[in-house]
Amino acid sequence: MSQFRWIGKPLPRIDAKQKVTGAVRYVTDMAFPDMLWGAVLRSKYPHALIKSIDVSKAKEKSGVIDVLTYEDVPGLNAFGIITQDQPVLCQEKVRFMGDAVAYVLAEDKRTAYEALDLIEVDYEPLPVVSDMEEAIKNTTKVHKDGNVLEHVVITKGNVAEAFESCDLVVEETYYTPRQMHTFLETEGGVATIDEDGIITVFSSSQYPNRDIIQIARSLAYPEDKIHVVGHPIGGGFGGKDEITTQILLALGTLKTGRPVKTVWDREESVIAGQKRLPLKITLKTGVTKDGRLIANQCRVVADTGPYNALGSAVMKLALEHACGPYYVPNTYLEGYCVYTNNTLGSAFRGFGATQATFAIERQLDLISKKLGIDPLEIRIKNALQNNQSAGLGHLPAPSVGIADTLNQLKKHDLWVNKEEYLKTDVPYLKRAIGIACSHQGCGLGSFFPDYGSADIRLLPDGSFNVKVGCPDIGQGNATAFAQIAAEVLHTDPDNIHVEIGDSRTSPDSGSTSASRSIYTGGNAIVISGRKVKALLLAEASRALGVAPDLLQFGVNNISTKDGDRSITYKEIASNVAGRKGTIRYTSRFDWPTSELEFNEALGLPHYVFSYISEMALVEVNELTGEARVLKAVVSPDAGRIINIQGLEGQAEGGTVMGMGFALMEDVILDEGQYLTRDLSTYIIPTALDIPEMDTVPVEALESTGPFGAKGIGEAVCNPITPAVINAICDVLDINITKLPATPEMVYNLAHKKIS
Amino acid sequence: MSQFRWIGKPLPRIDAKQKVTGAVRYVTDMAFPDMLWGAVLRSKYPHALIKSIDVSKAKEKSGVIDVLTYEDVPGLNAFGIITQDQPVLCQEKVRFMGDAVAYVLAEDKRTAYEALDLIEVDYEPLPVVSDMEEAIKNTTKVHKDGNVLEHVVITKGNVAEAFESCDLVVEETYYTPRQMHTFLETEGGVATIDEDGIITVFSSSQYPNRDIIQIARSLAYPEDKIHVVGHPIGGGFGGKDEITTQILLALGTLKTGRPVKTVWDREESVIAGQKRLPLKITLKTGVTKDGRLIANQCRVVADTGPYNALGSAVMKLALEHACGPYYVPNTYLEGYCVYTNNTLGSAFRGFGATQATFAIERQLDLISKKLGIDPLEIRIKNALQNNQSAGLGHLPAPSVGIADTLNQLKKHDLWVNKEEYLKTDVPYLKRAIGIACSHQGCGLGSFFPDYGSADIRLLPDGSFNVKVGCPDIGQGNATAFAQIAAEVLHTDPDNIHVEIGDSRTSPDSGSTSASRSIYTGGNAIVISGRKVKALLLAEASRALGVAPDLLQFGVNNISTKDGDRSITYKEIASNVAGRKGTIRYTSRFDWPTSELEFNEALGLPHYVFSYISEMALVEVNELTGEARVLKAVVSPDAGRIINIQGLEGQAEGGTVMGMGFALMEDVILDEGQYLTRDLSTYIIPTALDIPEMDTVPVEALESTGPFGAKGIGEAVCNPITPAVINAICDVLDINITKLPATPEMVYNLAHKKIS
Repeated sequence: MSQFRWIGKPLPRIDAKQKVTGAVRYVTDMAFPDMLWGAVLRSKYPHALIKSIDVSKAKEKSGVIDVLTYEDVPGLNAFGIITQDQPVLCQEKVRFMGDAVAYVLAEDKRTAYEALDLIEVDYEPLPVVSDMEEAIKNTTKVHKDGNVLEHVVITKGNVAEAFESCDLVVEETYYTPRQMHTFLETEGGVATIDEDGIITVFSSSQYPNRDIIQIARSLAYPEDKIHVVGHPIGGGFGGKDEITTQILLALGTLKTGRPVKTVWDREESVIAGQKRLPLKITLKTGVTKDGRLIANQCRVVADTGPYNALGSAVMKLALEHACGPYYVPNTYLEGYCVYTNNTLGSAFRGFGATQATFAIERQLDLISKKLGIDPLEIRIKNALQNNQSAGLGHLPAPSVGIADTLNQLKKHDLWVNKEEYLKTDVPYLKRAIGIACSHQGCGLGSFFPDYGSADIRLLPDGSFNVKVGCPDIGQGNATAFAQIAAEVLHTDPDNIHVEIGDSRTSPDSGSTSASRSIYTGGNAIVISGRKVKALLLAEASRALGVAPDLLQFGVNNISTKDGDRSITYKEIASNVAGRKGTIRYTSRFDWPTSELEFNEALGLPHYVFSYISEMALVEVNELTGEARVLKAVVSPDAGRIINIQGLEGQAEGGTVMGMGFALMEDVILDEGQYLTRDLSTYIIPTALDIPEMDTVPVEALESTGPFGAKGIGEAVCNPITPAVINAICDVLDINITKLPATPEMVYNLAHKKIS
Repeated sequence: MSQFRWIGKPLPRIDAKQKVTGAVRYVTDMAFPDMLWGAVLRSKYPHALIKSIDVSKAKEKSGVIDVLTYEDVPGLNAFGIITQDQPVLCQEKVRFMGDAVAYVLAEDKRTAYEALDLIEVDYEPLPVVSDMEEAIKNTTKVHKDGNVLEHVVITKGNVAEAFESCDLVVEETYYTPRQMHTFLETEGGVATIDEDGIITVFSSSQYPNRDIIQIARSLAYPEDKIHVVGHPIGGGFGGKDEITTQILLALGTLKTGRPVKTVWDREESVIAGQKRLPLKITLKTGVTKDGRLIANQCRVVADTGPYNALGSAVMKLALEHACGPYYVPNTYLEGYCVYTNNTLGSAFRGFGATQATFAIERQLDLISKKLGIDPLEIRIKNALQNNQSAGLGHLPAPSVGIADTLNQLKKHDLWVNKEEYLKTDVPYLKRAIGIACSHQGCGLGSFFPDYGSADIRLLPDGSFNVKVGCPDIGQGNATAFAQIAAEVLHTDPDNIHVEIGDSRTSPDSGSTSASRSIYTGGNAIVISGRKVKALLLAEASRALGVAPDLLQFGVNNISTKDGDRSITYKEIASNVAGRKGTIRYTSRFDWPTSELEFNEALGLPHYVFSYISEMALVEVNELTGEARVLKAVVSPDAGRIINIQGLEGQAEGGTVMGMGFALMEDVILDEGQYLTRDLSTYIIPTALDIPEMDTVPVEALESTGPFGAKGIGEAVCNPITPAVINAICDVLDINITKLPATPEMVYNLAHKKIS
């Protein structure tokens, strides 16, 4: 029997019924009387100087209330989480096709979009920077200080010496595509202003509290007069961590005094929305003849496009994860993050680790083939152990479960009876099993202040209100929060009312990103829950006239240990109502950091990591190059499992997303111009592509986590890509170095049409 | 062999040589060119209305630069840590003889004091409130809202029911005196202002960073333009936690633009300085016939005098400690803190626990005598255990060492061979051994934010600079800080340069009070030290080209585990000098709190406690009533001992201070007028009174403390008082309920001259 009442249970999503019945109103579903529609004029060129902007004709159009340009931005005309380099509305130049030049506010949507055509912008086109290596040369500069946004070198041990001693050194260069988040709900929101000047922005956002800072800065408006509501969201995946429409919406309502709505259509989302950064990753990896990793040298170039957003951090995480979840005593990690006139790169589930995983896991397979070592065994041999330093040189938390996840795969039927699975009846259909591992740092990294807060209040009926900042972006953290609170407070999840992602009511808990929300929000709930428990016990002691250490918790009540007398939570709520209102506590939780860590200038070392191994049975059609994933076995280590159904959901969803990255997805550009413009050419996996999936978790408990939990939201989309590609390469004896591995590419490689 | 290199060692005080040779410049030793002297006009009456103040004649006197009154206070004319109820300079009324009415600034000290006589104040005397029970009746009001500053009732279990079931109930009322801190350096300081308007106050202060807040508030002056330096101090003991001269000094320099000095002479210190609050404590204590404590009812009235300062908190700590370090399942604790026109009551080492200890330990002896149970055994029987609730109902940290300390006494020679020690050759000299226990909450209590910070920096020569806020007030925390830092950083204390108690340079670590500085500062140093160690290791790894997990710390160096190569701290400092300056980290440590705790309205539950038992061999002269302490055995539980010599110093100093409280010390007033005016009638123990002392510590390790340490600065002065009084009562078969037990009182009680 489990030691827990709720932790680990497959509790159905608390928002499932509402979502399935369509009752949920997403933030972009909001509407208000007298609401205006805001439409954004996008750039005409990938790179051009703006000579003049004439909005007079647009303003004259009937139904247009105002047309805003850079001149209307009261504060800093720039935003960005790390670097404020992206204009709210462009002034002197445009740097990609998605740049915002003007913002039309009209009585209705059609009028707003029609008015865009009446705005006259005089551009002087500039040469386009589209290749990342060319960008480094600074022949044409996207920003005046040049195109190299950040360049870092991080070393551990001495790779030069170490390569000398290696029996085998493998070197290869890998390219990853521009994946799009493809959320159901595109970017958008509604903003209102009231008679006190309070601006409320309802926006599809992963971090309402940070949005406030960015809005206030650009509007030169007090932070305490700005609210942001970011829940519920129709998907985030990192693409709603940076600002999308929030500042323009707030500006629109401030200028007009009326509610303003803007929602990008899919085409605008493709052009202006953030994308997974394309990376070029060169790895030089040295091993002993028995397959032990000795040295890994990595060079990453990341194309963040016109603005930083989170691009430079993504590059650093790629470096951190470039050695995989393996022990490598000598590393040399060099990274460039460059500006180009391509798509805006930023956060995407996996955040650099996804790209790095593809590269290092291909290396492992190249090595295993050259040395004749089984791909599973070479991974077990090198799997990181507790108290071994990670790639950046720092010590991760001692909850390193990677070897256990590999052992889970090893004993799975797919591996044990692989010969059976590999058989096909059709001569041109070939099967192979690919394996890959991954890990993912949870949280923002050691040098950012990373914290959470939860407010728990006893309600008159004996139930509890639980407020946490970080929104539920579809992954189900609200459900997990209810389970954690119910466990701590000795009650049922039905008795927990979670309020989330609304800066008007819930305390700042940081962003829902970086695999951090269960760990952070959960810890904050545990702290508050224990305090509230203590206060409940004190009240029970007073009411029953029994010392608190002679009392015990039941479910929704407290009784004497001899069972003679008891008091319910509802009675306690009634007792305290007169005297002091209610029992309530707001906690603060700060992330721990590694005791062995490198200087902040040199990367973003994480302390807590989730680990994962995955194995895919892939069938390749030799006649067409088409690859189908028939079966996937995922072994995630998320520490303590809070909700097994939630974990399986993450594992399955992540696998499918990673399959899209491996085989299909890419936003294709030509000299900064979009060839991919909508979902007719941007293909993602559908229900028909989804394989049979098994999730076989391990639980390497994290002592600093809530009940031992870590975060798994990102790691789940990493290993499937190299697992699938490794299988294809194995069966066709080819070397795929560039994603996505479309049928054309696979066919051409197999038939030596390309080298 | 100890597992530690420095922790626990009897390292000589790092400031010993300077102090012994007289080289130390205390903050009141400071002098500056063009410095003025500030003298304070004190009240003429204990309670009076001020009709007018005429400073014109004083201003005309040659050499007088200015005379300040309430009209010259730019900001809030009031201060106070908890309640801002004490005027900087009185306006409409005076409330005790120490009230400040005017502040003369003159070219020299003599002129300043002579000018005081020229100030004409027209008073209208009011009835004096001098009795604390009368004060509750509010016949005359010291403050307009009445004399009851705070009234609290805290209950655990049900005393009424419990008393019914008791075999014996003992009730008694106890009175404790106005003890004076009698520090060598009286209250005072020097303030300067520079051309940028930066005010620097050098003042004998236990918490420079809080002084800044109080000065800024009264001067309506920006906090960042105020610095306070509070180190070194010639004694604090709680009497320099609240404001003494700091605000007037800052005001003086602000008004005149010149340096200003004010140091109270001993007479002014007696009148205006803070004192240990006199308490009236009524205890009703119920036990079973085998001596098990069942219920304890307590009523405390605390005389805080004219202003709160820390008086109301002292009352709450008296309630918290009124059950002693024993498990009592039912408690009813009621406390009043009242205003009177007596001395200003505030913090004094022990902070309410000292007074409560006297009362509950007398109760234990009354009970042990009535039941015929050995006084040591009755204490062992009731000693609090881990996971039992304390008097307020909350759970202390599970490092409860009280039973162990009693067992230390039990096996000491003084107890084992007590018959030998009790023999005397003189018929009128009688001997007895008294025993008592105590405990003391460390830190501010659960509902105050309590935190610390330490800044550690690697210096070019490979040594370290360690900055901590809380001043060394004579107890030697600077030495302990050096030991802790040396231990963490694998170096020697000589290599640690401690900067302390200077708001210009050291980070805020809270006050040096509440037995908190070793625990708080120590934890902050451990956190910073570990970070600095991590950064040292990273640099060593980079320099040696070896992964950090293959390296080890020596002393002042880091080497490869195979011993082949190493790098010194000095070399590391040189390596980083060019690249990033130095290695440095500033930590933040927040106090943990009990998970089982009561609402903030109801007391100040502490989480970490130190425990102590003490045994005194006392000889009483039946002819004179004079009592001499011949030998004292102290068993303190301070958790991990950081410096054994420091611990012994605390145990011995605390014992002597407690002896003064027991036998000699009281500031005597008559209707608000001081009968005790200086050290000719305020008698404290001298070297000739000091007994032979043995310190036999136990170490109940505190898991949240630095290396397991707790704080012992206050507990040490608590148990000796009841131990001595219990011995006297035992030998003469009397019941002393009021302190100090002077020879006259003892003689009269023994000869039934008073009841």
